[in-house]
Amino acid sequence: MTSEPSTIAGSDAQLRTLAEELLAERELIIASNRGPVEFTIGADGTLSAQRGSGGVVTALSAVSRFVELTWIAAAMTDGDRRVAAEAGTERVKAPTTDDRLYLRFVVTPRNVYQRYYNVFCNPLLWFLQHYMWNTPRTPNISRAIYEAWEGGYVPVNRAFAEAVLQEAAGQQAPPYVMVHDYHLYLVPGEVRRQLPEAIIQHFTHIPWPDPRYWELLPRFMRHAIYTNLVAADVIGLQTMRDVRNFLHCCEAFIEGAEVDYRRSTVWYDGHLTHVKHYPISIDAQGLTALAASEEVQRYEEALAPLFEGRTIVRVDRSEPSKNILRGFRAYELLLQRYPEFHGQVTFLAFIVPSRTEINLYQTYTDEIFELVDEINDEYGTADWQPIHLFFENNYEQAIAAMRHYDVLLVNAVIDGMNLVAKEGALVNTRNGVLVLSEAAGAFEQLGEYALPVAPADIEGTVRALHAALIMPEADRRRRAQALRRRVSQEDITTWLETQFRDLLTLA
Amino acid sequence: MTSEPSTIAGSDAQLRTLAEELLAERELIIASNRGPVEFTIGADGTLSAQRGSGGVVTALSAVSRFVELTWIAAAMTDGDRRVAAEAGTERVKAPTTDDRLYLRFVVTPRNVYQRYYNVFCNPLLWFLQHYMWNTPRTPNISRAIYEAWEGGYVPVNRAFAEAVLQEAAGQQAPPYVMVHDYHLYLVPGEVRRQLPEAIIQHFTHIPWPDPRYWELLPRFMRHAIYTNLVAADVIGLQTMRDVRNFLHCCEAFIEGAEVDYRRSTVWYDGHLTHVKHYPISIDAQGLTALAASEEVQRYEEALAPLFEGRTIVRVDRSEPSKNILRGFRAYELLLQRYPEFHGQVTFLAFIVPSRTEINLYQTYTDEIFELVDEINDEYGTADWQPIHLFFENNYEQAIAAMRHYDVLLVNAVIDGMNLVAKEGALVNTRNGVLVLSEAAGAFEQLGEYALPVAPADIEGTVRALHAALIMPEADRRRRAQALRRRVSQEDITTWLETQFRDLLTLA
Repeated sequence: MTSEPSTIAGSDAQLRTLAEELLAERELIIASNRGPVEFTIGADGTLSAQRGSGGVVTALSAVSRFVELTWIAAAMTDGDRRVAAEAGTERVKAPTTDDRLYLRFVVTPRNVYQRYYNVFCNPLLWFLQHYMWNTPRTPNISRAIYEAWEGGYVPVNRAFAEAVLQEAAGQQAPPYVMVHDYHLYLVPGEVRRQLPEAIIQHFTHIPWPDPRYWELLPRFMRHAIYTNLVAADVIGLQTMRDVRNFLHCCEAFIEGAEVDYRRSTVWYDGHLTHVKHYPISIDAQGLTALAASEEVQRYEEALAPLFEGRTIVRVDRSEPSKNILRGFRAYELLLQRYPEFHGQVTFLAFIVPSRTEINLYQTYTDEIFELVDEINDEYGTADWQPIHLFFENNYEQAIAAMRHYDVLLVNAVIDGMNLVAKEGALVNTRNGVLVLSEAAGAFEQLGEYALPVAPADIEGTVRALHAALIMPEADRRRRAQALRRRVSQEDITTWLETQFRDLLTLA
Repeated sequence: MTSEPSTIAGSDAQLRTLAEELLAERELIIASNRGPVEFTIGADGTLSAQRGSGGVVTALSAVSRFVELTWIAAAMTDGDRRVAAEAGTERVKAPTTDDRLYLRFVVTPRNVYQRYYNVFCNPLLWFLQHYMWNTPRTPNISRAIYEAWEGGYVPVNRAFAEAVLQEAAGQQAPPYVMVHDYHLYLVPGEVRRQLPEAIIQHFTHIPWPDPRYWELLPRFMRHAIYTNLVAADVIGLQTMRDVRNFLHCCEAFIEGAEVDYRRSTVWYDGHLTHVKHYPISIDAQGLTALAASEEVQRYEEALAPLFEGRTIVRVDRSEPSKNILRGFRAYELLLQRYPEFHGQVTFLAFIVPSRTEINLYQTYTDEIFELVDEINDEYGTADWQPIHLFFENNYEQAIAAMRHYDVLLVNAVIDGMNLVAKEGALVNTRNGVLVLSEAAGAFEQLGEYALPVAPADIEGTVRALHAALIMPEADRRRRAQALRRRVSQEDITTWLETQFRDLLTLA
């Protein structure tokens, strides 16, 4: 195996010590829209529990390996609602092997949640923070969006804050509260007003744009978002870029805020906020185990014929910010310019269906299929299909494929972090080359050993793919080893450790 | 009249003194793509000269009222080329009443200039710096754009630098060189390498985005742009927002640069660059005289019937970043919600045709016409047409209209400065209310007395228009007076004065 267990284990032990120190006097509450467990009601009326999905949950699930905590999340299913009703004002023990994880569901009326999630968070904030608007035409902030704010985002955030307060009410000392992502920007302020001594952190998993882009939103929304966020003690973001933009936004949007760019702090309303970057990562230990599992091995065997020649692999949700179309266009130009690659290089794309109920996503997916057909029709032969498109949510299969790529293409238009780049670096066994967008958060850590591409730069992407395919073995090995080392060393335990360490200094 | 001549005159005198001091030891060279004079060859073969057009030229033309200078510009016409050929390596006296203005044309092959101007500068950089890309789909940086860089932008910038060096060769001391706008980002570096003692300033008239948006461009282009820019002694931008973004970009893109956010400087390659904001403004004296001219009066008389009721006015190029469609949609909603305005409020839109050869601009203009027809069909009556659209380049007519608006709508998606807001504030005689986009550069100076709108916020724009239309007279007067005072005090002479003052401290 390629990981370096000694490093991981060392970090693990450190983290456990730190966690004990952290929880000696205060308890830990995590709040995120999606929780670590989801309940469903079977046909016979009995409850069953599933592990929650999504990036945030996957990253945070490692926390309960180290500390006891209460996790507050939105009730998403009828099962969740039943659990919440039965629990009353109590938290419930999570039905997992992990006996240190407790749950508390936030229940809001369905139409309130719908406005919060499907009108405000996902179309508006997600697009905004990924610079995905066609600004002269979209978005159009209508009365419906005002209503989604007033009757969705605000009340759901208040309900989350209420749940934090209920949980804290039973505790000896004010808790640590770790609030996650763009769904819950108002929670730090709402909690602070009731619980001045709480130690509050907010972490945003997606990119943070500069003031000019945030200015597409109405001023009163921005004002509420920023003043409630800086009520936290620590604002966590993925990269230095995000930290700078956040500080700049505070300076631009919060009247009376004092921003210190050198110390990376915001002073507002008698309170100091530290703005820091904590690049999220993968659970190296867990992924290493998974990559060696029988299930992954079975997929490796099934995929083996496709990996006989050289391969370019990509793994992404079907999401416009992932830049899948430009990636295929670059490959098309590669085939056009270098006939010697015909029959020799195959592109394997593992695309996970995403947000299929949103038109823009459906159109994007349709265009992907069309472009793939076009390229296969133009260049394919009886013996060789230039692109194989796997359109399904199958993590084990993707991991199996990543063990064998020669080139991994991650050319996101913009991305908070991009964990695929890190997963690939860890599990690949062929000294594969990483072609990496400079606008993916992962670039700050991995860029040095990757071939960089600017996301809009199709010409540059063609050149990078070509360079990756003809790279001498020694260079490939040097880069692949360095990438693997870095991902192993700075894995999810590092991410947690640095955050815990910072929280401890505030206690 | 509404201006305050005492302030302006005082500033004028100060500026003259400053200019004399400035030019005591060094001469002044301005370089911009478009020059202050354009030559055409008549049917009989004789040359005639016209005043150049465009915002940069208009702003800079005031400079030669105060100082002698040589202005270097691209030869655009056959007339310019003939003048350049006849002048050889000499500058030529501008054929204007102003005897302190000299010209020097930069001649490059037509296909080189075409790549520079129509492929690189206007589609790519303009769109980039106005955040106008639909990032998952555009731009697509192709080989043609690489060629436009290597065979267009770079050689034209070098030719400009060469012209600066030729001009400086005849001077006693290294000159002041003021380089203007996004066409000429490489000139400071090219000049610095040959003329280390020159005092170089670069001023960008359009917005400066943050690193994430710049990252759409290939790394080698960014690197060339930023390292050549910071070879200047002073980087001038319109607003504090732009200054912060510029500093952030230097930190992100120039390896080895030391950025000091507090002092607003960049230290790179043994050289210190000051990054400052100089909000550009209008020539208050000149505009005041124009507004009182007979020609403007004639337009006022012609337009008088349209100004009998209350009016909303806008004046803009037909340009997607000006946000004309959302403005009309907001007005449509206003009429839908407030039937009492029917027949009482008229929208007069003075739209100047722009870049009609670019598809995207043509489509945008077509949509404007369609939307105007739709609204007029829906709400118009025999006695009242809700929107009057004037589609022509007629500055005097626009000034005449701005003397009489009740509401001036400036809702740009994003704008370097937006001088319409300042012109309106100065010439309006009805205590008209300014509804102003927070993402227009002018907002930093005028926002306090305007009604702010977020550009994408149609609902907020409806509310702002309504608030403006029902605002009590005392409030209107207070705001209008404050706006007028500010524009009179911080006019173009202030803009020049602060720049000259900063250059003097470097001499």
